[in-house]
Amino acid sequence: MMTSYTSETREPSTLSRYLDGEFWQAKDQLREDISRCELFHICSYDLTLDQNRDLTMERVCFFIQTPIMNQHLKNQVKEKQPGFIAKSMSLTELICSADLATGVKLGVMCGLYGGAVTNLGSPEQKDIWYLPVTDLAFTGMFAMTERGHGSNVRGILTEAHYDPDTQEFIIHTPSVDAQKMYIGNAMKGNYASLFAQLIIGGESQGPHCFIVPIRDTDGIMNPGVTTVDMKHKEGLHGVDNGILIFDHVRIPRENLLGKFGSVSAEGVYSSPVQNKSRRFNAMLAALTPTRLALTVQAMAAMKLGLIIAVRYSHSRRQFGPKDQDEVKIIEHQTQYLRLMPHLAAVLALTFTTRYAVGVMDDVLCRGDDMQHNRTLQAMVAGLKAYSTWQNLQCLQDCRECTGGMGFMMENRIPALKCDSDVFVTFEGDNMVMLQVVARELMSQYASQMQTSLMGGLIRTWTNSVSDGLRTSFLGFNVDRLGDLNFLLKALAYRERVLQRSLAARLYAKVEKNRDPFFDAWNSCLHHITSLALAHIHRVTLEQFAVAVQQCPVEEDRALLAKFCLLHGTSLVYQERAWYLEHNYLTPGTSRAIRTQLLELCRSVKDEALKVVSDFNVPSCCIQAPIAGIVNPRAQWAFYSSPDHTHLSSSLPQHHAAKL
Amino acid sequence: MMTSYTSETREPSTLSRYLDGEFWQAKDQLREDISRCELFHICSYDLTLDQNRDLTMERVCFFIQTPIMNQHLKNQVKEKQPGFIAKSMSLTELICSADLATGVKLGVMCGLYGGAVTNLGSPEQKDIWYLPVTDLAFTGMFAMTERGHGSNVRGILTEAHYDPDTQEFIIHTPSVDAQKMYIGNAMKGNYASLFAQLIIGGESQGPHCFIVPIRDTDGIMNPGVTTVDMKHKEGLHGVDNGILIFDHVRIPRENLLGKFGSVSAEGVYSSPVQNKSRRFNAMLAALTPTRLALTVQAMAAMKLGLIIAVRYSHSRRQFGPKDQDEVKIIEHQTQYLRLMPHLAAVLALTFTTRYAVGVMDDVLCRGDDMQHNRTLQAMVAGLKAYSTWQNLQCLQDCRECTGGMGFMMENRIPALKCDSDVFVTFEGDNMVMLQVVARELMSQYASQMQTSLMGGLIRTWTNSVSDGLRTSFLGFNVDRLGDLNFLLKALAYRERVLQRSLAARLYAKVEKNRDPFFDAWNSCLHHITSLALAHIHRVTLEQFAVAVQQCPVEEDRALLAKFCLLHGTSLVYQERAWYLEHNYLTPGTSRAIRTQLLELCRSVKDEALKVVSDFNVPSCCIQAPIAGIVNPRAQWAFYSSPDHTHLSSSLPQHHAAKL
Repeated sequence: MMTSYTSETREPSTLSRYLDGEFWQAKDQLREDISRCELFHICSYDLTLDQNRDLTMERVCFFIQTPIMNQHLKNQVKEKQPGFIAKSMSLTELICSADLATGVKLGVMCGLYGGAVTNLGSPEQKDIWYLPVTDLAFTGMFAMTERGHGSNVRGILTEAHYDPDTQEFIIHTPSVDAQKMYIGNAMKGNYASLFAQLIIGGESQGPHCFIVPIRDTDGIMNPGVTTVDMKHKEGLHGVDNGILIFDHVRIPRENLLGKFGSVSAEGVYSSPVQNKSRRFNAMLAALTPTRLALTVQAMAAMKLGLIIAVRYSHSRRQFGPKDQDEVKIIEHQTQYLRLMPHLAAVLALTFTTRYAVGVMDDVLCRGDDMQHNRTLQAMVAGLKAYSTWQNLQCLQDCRECTGGMGFMMENRIPALKCDSDVFVTFEGDNMVMLQVVARELMSQYASQMQTSLMGGLIRTWTNSVSDGLRTSFLGFNVDRLGDLNFLLKALAYRERVLQRSLAARLYAKVEKNRDPFFDAWNSCLHHITSLALAHIHRVTLEQFAVAVQQCPVEEDRALLAKFCLLHGTSLVYQERAWYLEHNYLTPGTSRAIRTQLLELCRSVKDEALKVVSDFNVPSCCIQAPIAGIVNPRAQWAFYSSPDHTHLSSSLPQHHAAKL
Repeated sequence: MMTSYTSETREPSTLSRYLDGEFWQAKDQLREDISRCELFHICSYDLTLDQNRDLTMERVCFFIQTPIMNQHLKNQVKEKQPGFIAKSMSLTELICSADLATGVKLGVMCGLYGGAVTNLGSPEQKDIWYLPVTDLAFTGMFAMTERGHGSNVRGILTEAHYDPDTQEFIIHTPSVDAQKMYIGNAMKGNYASLFAQLIIGGESQGPHCFIVPIRDTDGIMNPGVTTVDMKHKEGLHGVDNGILIFDHVRIPRENLLGKFGSVSAEGVYSSPVQNKSRRFNAMLAALTPTRLALTVQAMAAMKLGLIIAVRYSHSRRQFGPKDQDEVKIIEHQTQYLRLMPHLAAVLALTFTTRYAVGVMDDVLCRGDDMQHNRTLQAMVAGLKAYSTWQNLQCLQDCRECTGGMGFMMENRIPALKCDSDVFVTFEGDNMVMLQVVARELMSQYASQMQTSLMGGLIRTWTNSVSDGLRTSFLGFNVDRLGDLNFLLKALAYRERVLQRSLAARLYAKVEKNRDPFFDAWNSCLHHITSLALAHIHRVTLEQFAVAVQQCPVEEDRALLAKFCLLHGTSLVYQERAWYLEHNYLTPGTSRAIRTQLLELCRSVKDEALKVVSDFNVPSCCIQAPIAGIVNPRAQWAFYSSPDHTHLSSSLPQHHAAKL
């Protein structure tokens, strides 16, 4: 237990600093804390469920106690702090690199429970219900999802009846479908920030958030509260998910988080937002930053997977020219074609997330309403869906590109896959997220037209054939493919056409055919999800392009520019069928895009080693022996890490010259 | 331990019988055995590694002892038995439904170790080295893969020096890269069928297979043999994979499996195949049936995933029209669009595998050489790659379509994913399999041209623009899209064009530019893998179409015809970019294919319940509470199974009428 670990001494490169962003000093401090802490030199894949949960709790407590995190968490109760969310996301990514379960559990306690208290509570409530969490006095959980209502949170059934005689709320689970489910920290936590229908005198005011004691710090359950352990999941074994059931549990009137609605002692309800639906939307909007955390968690997993797969691909040899040494597997065309687009995508996500976080911090500092920033809402929902799916594809390719070694737990990738698999359905199922994006885009478009939603949309739709953005003629000029502007325009064109045609279809179904809206929307779901992905694709390429321009070091800028072009090429290539269907690409241009994709992937495969190195993830977080990290329990898996600084000269001559 | 379980009594439908195929009686018997055995009423997801391995061994022993399997395994030593492989595959699929690790471990002991002995050994060797396995006297393992040579097995380094003085082979691991790795049953098994370079008088005769004692039945290691436990993997926890290292281990001369090469007492080598490379190919070809087993294992996993996801999608409700009941999630367009093509694909795989198995049984019964049946080799390699990737996509969609419930171990899908993930890289990495397919297609094509490979190909290539198969004009007639012949022709056209263009490219690179073959091939890898997938896509649709025609019951035939059309539509839709690039589809036809895909998926979503029911998987194998199987440890996850026979009448009216 007394082993002491030293931190790594390598001086970060300029690119590494640029990728870290504004809060690189805080990240460096936390990197050193992680590297020195023995809790992160333990592999958890062979622990029991209980051991895993205990280790995760220890790790969470460690992070809360580090000076850098502790100060940051205490700042959470203050309002309008410049860069607060940006810093949160920077630290979250690093924590998730160390262990995803720890990141998720800390996210439940501070981001979700803490976020509910600090965003929906009064200053006094923040001091009472959140500050003690930062002192490890107690912990919290976030109880929104119910058995009957996962993605459709608006329909939650848990009740909070106000009893004016005792000035208490009576929290009750009226049916099996009302049971709170999948609640993280349910088996260890002390308080829940719980969403329930607020009912006064028999009338519901819609969902509100209450602080409900679950168990005291000795583990004694609050009478009327039952928890059921959900035990074994595909991953995130360190997070104790459970079910909460309430049998007329009484809590004081002060436990209603009152920012968007409060009840007087006499039982009179008041709220700054009159409409029930908009009120609930406002509460959900206040929790938007926690949604961005999912993207950051997915990015952490992707970077780890890519570090491991890229290093192994530069070490492992298999097949080769007759009577010569076998070649490094990164030289196989399919290998670099599978890995390089993911590396480009995670860079794009890094810069896009930074942009979204910046917008969010600005909105909060101005005291604006996040809910009404449609651009931001669409971006955050889209990022959540795109990044978490992208992560799963990335990790799957990393796993397959590392062969049998990638199937071994020692090499980290399997656990990353299993841990992050849930990201695509939790905190808003991705299919629902994409519908949020489309809804925001539809509203945004209607308001741009300064007229009613459907009418405005359909009128402009008829003009779309002669859309000024249409630049199909460029398709004939193959040289222009390598121009980032061509790719940016192509993505913007696709989004706009999908947006207009969706509006037209919905208009025809709802206004002309009088179809019920649900049916009309449902019959367009494939279109809707395509639009949402087209939107977020466009945003990521734009933000990547901006980040390339802003990069201060020329050499780094040139490297990023190649990956940016690769990202755009990859996105257009994926959707080339659509462009061909719309005569935006000619058959010849479409084939040229494939050639360009192959060539770009080939051209960055060696520089990929520098990029993954510049992610600057501490080696105790990487863990994988095939990435050059010794593990005494699996010496057979060790491959020494290739050195990117000498790579070009070590390439076999016939490969440097060929292809 | 004395709980008795009864088998299920439901009378199988005609479709169920048709899906089962020729050996339905044996399958029914094994279904009853499984249902009655307490070993299959235990969930293994919370066991330790050792407990998992012990349980798996118990399950393997159970299967070997069932009358139906025992007789079948004993028949393995006989030659030219009609339908032997077909029956093996039927039983394998069912065993894998019960537990994938059990199926894989049994496959190692009987399919791989047993297959090596029975296909490469003499009649005496079969009696000595394999029959005792069927009596549980000892168990075997299969030692081909080495640390340095996974996919590239030709380069294995383990040595077997013949010592004429003692008439022994000396088995030795000359380097770290020569260590046998990932060997299943390595920690429990008694004998290895081991591939090593046979060296006589300092000269290598290429890889041969030897029987090497590893440990006796009391677990005492054979001197000179070291095993290293590889322990924790992403899945298949019940399979004990390990490393084998040999330090000058002496085995008798008789332990060389002698079908393709033997050594006289004096050290004179003789073989029916003179060329070393062809000799090794012949040995590998003899093991072809074990490759098909992978496809069958993947099919078992897919069917389980689909049973669970389809049933839950018909039970679970979420979202819906305003002020009405929420709808079943199968009604959401994206839900049926994600699940239905997988159901069509697994039906296609069922029939294609049956066809491949039939060809293989015929070849063996005729005593033909499987190695030279290029159609068969391409089909088997292609099926392995396509089915195992298809399985992962299917299970991932099943997992996402079941939301948070799909992330819980109780609901089976996570373990299916983790267990079957390795299928895409083991027993021949899928990327290597696709190259095998392309190689066979190139050779086949050259021999069709009755001339040299490259010359013949390039001459016909120039004619391809006016290819008789080109039926692009059909694209203008949208009505014809629903014609299966249109889809069959489209898939055949794509395969042929990719084949010819690949030949032309390779010819230009190798013959004209004098590129080394490895470089030329590598620079075409993306093209090569596209061709291979195009080939297997075409084969699966053709075999599905044949199976529809042969289906004896009209109602079943009509149902299968819809899924067949869906499978073809889905395959063409996936590759519509290619068809557009080649002007085979017009933009309008391409969009019409999307509409047809959506409509077909919608039209089969209710009948999907009948199909998954007709897979006839015992409920103890399904396990998942969300599929209607009670699990006392996770009562919260239970959803009663929807009854497909009454489904149409239970649909809400507005959905029966709409969309």
